[in-house]
Amino acid sequence: MSKILRYGMVGGGIGSLIGHVHRKGAEFDGRAKLVAGCFSTSFERTLLTGEELGLNRERLYRDHNEMAEKEAVREDGIDYVIICTPNYAHYAAAKAFLLQGIHVVCDKPLTFTVEEAEELAQLAEEKGLLFCTTYAYAQCPTAKQAQMMVKNGDIGEIQVVVAEYPMGWLATAAEQTGNKQAAWRTDPKFTGISNCVGDIGTHIENTVSYITGLEIDELCARLDNFGGENRALDTNAHILVKYKNGAVGNYWCSQVAIGYDNPLTVRVFGTKGSIEWRQEESNYLKVMKIGEPTQILARGNPYFYPEAAGMSRLAAGHPEGYFEMFANIYSKFNVALLKLQQGQELTAEDLDFADARAGARGVKFVHRCVESSKRGSVWVKFD
Amino acid sequence: MSKILRYGMVGGGIGSLIGHVHRKGAEFDGRAKLVAGCFSTSFERTLLTGEELGLNRERLYRDHNEMAEKEAVREDGIDYVIICTPNYAHYAAAKAFLLQGIHVVCDKPLTFTVEEAEELAQLAEEKGLLFCTTYAYAQCPTAKQAQMMVKNGDIGEIQVVVAEYPMGWLATAAEQTGNKQAAWRTDPKFTGISNCVGDIGTHIENTVSYITGLEIDELCARLDNFGGENRALDTNAHILVKYKNGAVGNYWCSQVAIGYDNPLTVRVFGTKGSIEWRQEESNYLKVMKIGEPTQILARGNPYFYPEAAGMSRLAAGHPEGYFEMFANIYSKFNVALLKLQQGQELTAEDLDFADARAGARGVKFVHRCVESSKRGSVWVKFD
Amino acid sequence: MSKILRYGMVGGGIGSLIGHVHRKGAEFDGRAKLVAGCFSTSFERTLLTGEELGLNRERLYRDHNEMAEKEAVREDGIDYVIICTPNYAHYAAAKAFLLQGIHVVCDKPLTFTVEEAEELAQLAEEKGLLFCTTYAYAQCPTAKQAQMMVKNGDIGEIQVVVAEYPMGWLATAAEQTGNKQAAWRTDPKFTGISNCVGDIGTHIENTVSYITGLEIDELCARLDNFGGENRALDTNAHILVKYKNGAVGNYWCSQVAIGYDNPLTVRVFGTKGSIEWRQEESNYLKVMKIGEPTQILARGNPYFYPEAAGMSRLAAGHPEGYFEMFANIYSKFNVALLKLQQGQELTAEDLDFADARAGARGVKFVHRCVESSKRGSVWVKFD
Amino acid sequence: MSKILRYGMVGGGIGSLIGHVHRKGAEFDGRAKLVAGCFSTSFERTLLTGEELGLNRERLYRDHNEMAEKEAVREDGIDYVIICTPNYAHYAAAKAFLLQGIHVVCDKPLTFTVEEAEELAQLAEEKGLLFCTTYAYAQCPTAKQAQMMVKNGDIGEIQVVVAEYPMGWLATAAEQTGNKQAAWRTDPKFTGISNCVGDIGTHIENTVSYITGLEIDELCARLDNFGGENRALDTNAHILVKYKNGAVGNYWCSQVAIGYDNPLTVRVFGTKGSIEWRQEESNYLKVMKIGEPTQILARGNPYFYPEAAGMSRLAAGHPEGYFEMFANIYSKFNVALLKLQQGQELTAEDLDFADARAGARGVKFVHRCVESSKRGSVWVKFD
Repeated sequence: MSKILRYGMVGGGIGSLIGHVHRKGAEFDGRAKLVAGCFSTSFERTLLTGEELGLNRERLYRDHNEMAEKEAVREDGIDYVIICTPNYAHYAAAKAFLLQGIHVVCDKPLTFTVEEAEELAQLAEEKGLLFCTTYAYAQCPTAKQAQMMVKNGDIGEIQVVVAEYPMGWLATAAEQTGNKQAAWRTDPKFTGISNCVGDIGTHIENTVSYITGLEIDELCARLDNFGGENRALDTNAHILVKYKNGAVGNYWCSQVAIGYDNPLTVRVFGTKGSIEWRQEESNYLKVMKIGEPTQILARGNPYFYPEAAGMSRLAAGHPEGYFEMFANIYSKFNVALLKLQQGQELTAEDLDFADARAGARGVKFVHRCVESSKRGSVWVKFD
Repeated sequence: MSKILRYGMVGGGIGSLIGHVHRKGAEFDGRAKLVAGCFSTSFERTLLTGEELGLNRERLYRDHNEMAEKEAVREDGIDYVIICTPNYAHYAAAKAFLLQGIHVVCDKPLTFTVEEAEELAQLAEEKGLLFCTTYAYAQCPTAKQAQMMVKNGDIGEIQVVVAEYPMGWLATAAEQTGNKQAAWRTDPKFTGISNCVGDIGTHIENTVSYITGLEIDELCARLDNFGGENRALDTNAHILVKYKNGAVGNYWCSQVAIGYDNPLTVRVFGTKGSIEWRQEESNYLKVMKIGEPTQILARGNPYFYPEAAGMSRLAAGHPEGYFEMFANIYSKFNVALLKLQQGQELTAEDLDFADARAGARGVKFVHRCVESSKRGSVWVKFD
Repeated sequence: MSKILRYGMVGGGIGSLIGHVHRKGAEFDGRAKLVAGCFSTSFERTLLTGEELGLNRERLYRDHNEMAEKEAVREDGIDYVIICTPNYAHYAAAKAFLLQGIHVVCDKPLTFTVEEAEELAQLAEEKGLLFCTTYAYAQCPTAKQAQMMVKNGDIGEIQVVVAEYPMGWLATAAEQTGNKQAAWRTDPKFTGISNCVGDIGTHIENTVSYITGLEIDELCARLDNFGGENRALDTNAHILVKYKNGAVGNYWCSQVAIGYDNPLTVRVFGTKGSIEWRQEESNYLKVMKIGEPTQILARGNPYFYPEAAGMSRLAAGHPEGYFEMFANIYSKFNVALLKLQQGQELTAEDLDFADARAGARGVKFVHRCVESSKRGSVWVKFD
Repeated sequence: MSKILRYGMVGGGIGSLIGHVHRKGAEFDGRAKLVAGCFSTSFERTLLTGEELGLNRERLYRDHNEMAEKEAVREDGIDYVIICTPNYAHYAAAKAFLLQGIHVVCDKPLTFTVEEAEELAQLAEEKGLLFCTTYAYAQCPTAKQAQMMVKNGDIGEIQVVVAEYPMGWLATAAEQTGNKQAAWRTDPKFTGISNCVGDIGTHIENTVSYITGLEIDELCARLDNFGGENRALDTNAHILVKYKNGAVGNYWCSQVAIGYDNPLTVRVFGTKGSIEWRQEESNYLKVMKIGEPTQILARGNPYFYPEAAGMSRLAAGHPEGYFEMFANIYSKFNVALLKLQQGQELTAEDLDFADARAGARGVKFVHRCVESSKRGSVWVKFD
């Protein structure tokens, strides 16, 4: 499996942290190489970025359509594209590449509407293309361990889920003081119908889903636009959830929780035990069983499930972090793509990353939350 | 102020932990002394308890009515009564003593119905009697510090409250295996219309109210009877709250959260900062302000507000715990009663403990949660 | 066992925190009652203290000799005395009461010289009197659990001990700004040849000894008088220890460690596992075994050894603290004394508190540390 | 500065974690590229590694001498070599490359003897070559912040240092059960005169030195060969230190501390405040000042010194880990080398990594510890 995959990028120009993170992740294990890009709506910025990244001038494009078309016909065209633009541009770009038969990795929330997301999913499926929605936080050894413990019944049947994702960076009106990310994330044109639920609530939805496998039946949400004057979009949300198996959940996401940087936390309570996973301390996992002392599992130790242990790159006590989460997504995606290109059958474990259907589920989650809140925080069916 | 107050007790017989805790708290500072009791519905147990506690045989009573009447006419009769029976008996006992002009300290949840609680409140007010509902957790230096910081605007205006009280002791059907407390707490006859919200949800309501001063406008609750078969009452509840000032809240209480003992936690998020208070680590308080490092305040240090510092009994680093919380309630109650008996005016700070109105508010909280949940987890007005 | 023991107190006058703590501990379980005292070198203060504590005027004494003699001949004389003066007064007072046949509880460090401490030990033994040196920190359920685990071989044979007791209260010259405790603790006349090792290093020595049972063979100490100008006594000490079984240890105590209140910590490393005990979080105990996740044991849960569980007063999650540690000492002392008075045989478990020999060992520890440091931090034999 | 540096590697063949970590670090920021190697004493393994890494067959060498000579004369020869063999091979390899005028990055402990290390240092200086000894732990934003706080006097003058590096991986005789790293690290032929002090004690020495700038005056060490039968080398060491400024320190390193993975910890106590840095939680830094609450600084926030902030790659709350520490070393080394090649003057900040002198100091530390311990744990002068 010595082939180096070629990928292109839409979005992620100079100064974009997430573009850097995607590239670092895609290339972390030496299986892929950036060869083309349309990094910005400004072609000038695309050119600058391409130069900085050492790309061939002829593979820098004015827009995603041009890029999709031209790359599709090159013999050395890209194997896949990474889309890491602001939300509004995901749909059109992803569709363009899928139509040209190019595999897609796209940021979340996947699209503005559920229909768009499902269209992308269907398109990928029809064309036999891989599609990855980049929910990174679940892609670490301890979240995988949590998932394996749930799957193996180690904590019994799940009854309660409590998850939260508090941040404080929009506690003040940062969008009015030159913070570009704040500017687009608080603007419906670029970010869609929700800021907070869309940006980070979806991470809760995805991580809970990944760890527990639970499906949401109904939810009831309260969204508020705290933290600046006349904000058009939510910065805080409380969401009650009922799952199809009878379990209940409680999600909280916020961008006005002063003092919090990024501590996405998922706690799962079953009939035999509980699990607590925290993103900011994701080298550790807390596990509690009836009548036993609390356990702290430390990544890299021999008591992990093989599937979880296999996602570690470093020995115990040598912390892994955010880059490694992206590396784990791309590690799976790259290998799956190589297998696909070699005509191998892909297993569920090969595809252990969020696909377009998971992306669509995230968009649906956003819409249901907004709908519930708008109608007075009533319960709405998820499907 | 050298007088030693005399008190009696209803409930709290041999083997009752909470009875012991009340007595320890009442006498912690040497201002009160137990002299009478009706410790059990079994007179035999009352006699045994009285003997163990060294009480005079003639001041052990068959029921609270007898006790209230006889103590009221004794020259050396009790100054106040402590009622720490299971919930069902609070109302009648408290009323009996109030009617006899005896001050009352009573456990929470105060009564089965809101009307009963308000009747007690009105009775106490009419007769000029002190009434304390024993919510203990707010009665510690760090919760007081949190309250003072909110009052002084240190964290700005409150926008979000997130509070939880998870326990795991009813994850299995403990009521069927000889656990007496589990037996009565899961039985509506003894505990009322709610187990989990009544027992521990009320602590959330009270502690949040104490720290923030916020008033609930509406709430939406989902209660579940997890953890045993055919349980009649809730063991898990998620509650969304809207406050009158526009803030929102999210409370979770559970008795099926395996691995958790008693970590009541209240987090308050304002426009200028955040506060996190945890009962199990209540010698410390976490404070976060915009753009500053997280602060850990340690009880006993000079940077506390005087009102909070004044509730410490020990030097920094010498942990205080649960007994001291009860001692703080009774310290204030005893001093207030002595002042009252001496004809002094009582200030708000003298009465810095939950009264019957606070107790009634707790009962109302239970009823609103049950009502909301029964009606499909709809929003209900608090008042 | 319904008799209430009578005790007297030497030291611990108004404003003395430790006097209050001793009284609270002695009476915590209702087995003892203060009836006599010589609370201060100022008789006036003794009278004021006695009045505040409600003592009979005739049982307030000008000095410990008068008290020992008069109490010894009273029919209702004290069963035991508690000595909680500054260090310099321990020896003479303890000896006076022992000579009168009165049992003794005395603060640490027990005496100025090893010979004095051993004389007290011998005197107590000859006269068949109980003698307790009040090392409180080991007297909690989690330290007992640690001891039981070591005894039962749960962590194998001990190879390494790492213990520390950092405080920050003498980082500035508090003795020059009106802090009375700082004044006497930094003055050799009142405190002896060592401040820091004497006051808190001895707690390390005792707690390690209690948990591990190890005996010191040799030690090498470096003492420094940091934190104020021209201090006569040490405020920081590093001590290397070799134990008779071949294990090694490393103790650090400091009063100039800014930011630390009182976190005495003992970590024990054996061939099969490790234990970490922390005073400020002593409701929890950390245990690590080869190849297993770290365990956090929480006081009050069923997985404790019965001997450790028996030292709990409260349910899990309802924190116990410093008062309870003193209560546990006195609980054992009071019961042992009652048994002794009833002619019962005392078992090792009855006497599970530090005696005069343990007190003498502590004094020896102080002297060895000072000797080592003075001679250039050379190794000195313990015995 | 668009040139991509070329580097070669000695050691770090297939299956070597540290080889992978070095390569990842060197290339993290896209400034360097591996082009040559002698990855193993087995040429077969070198060939396999080279193939896996996509190297040109002609640049895979049988030994470091051949590699140094041939690379030195190539027009596209390596700019620098990374040496990450077991300890015994560092000296000869480093010398070979220096003699050929090739810059060197070499693992620690740098050499077997102090003389060898100083010879390397002198050689590098004479030839104007860069030399980096890869002490990684200090190369993170929080350790840099600690250093800057000390430099700026934020915690006053340092009086006490307490540092530790406990691990548990050699608690059993892993060297006898197929663990290759255990095998060479416990064998004097490959590892030198010390295992534990050499491997991890040196990290304490370096990190303390980096943060505090203190110079050791004398030390007293006790080394033990715990954890296996008849081990030739130390697995546990306690070291007392006196610094030239009058401060004292206490270092502990261990490989038999069951339950510990890799928590190198440095605590520094000054006259105005204290700092606590922990490798396993190095996204945070604890700071304590007299009379103030404890502060937790979180990497990525605006209150860091610019020099420290500049070492962050990710936003706050997005954890960085071990790879980033190596990336930070190489980021500085690569840039310094590029500047040097361009004839620019190098500043102290450009050279903010451990050089050969620092490497020599580490070797001296090892020798002094072993010497002290062998002579009965006496005090020995550092210089």
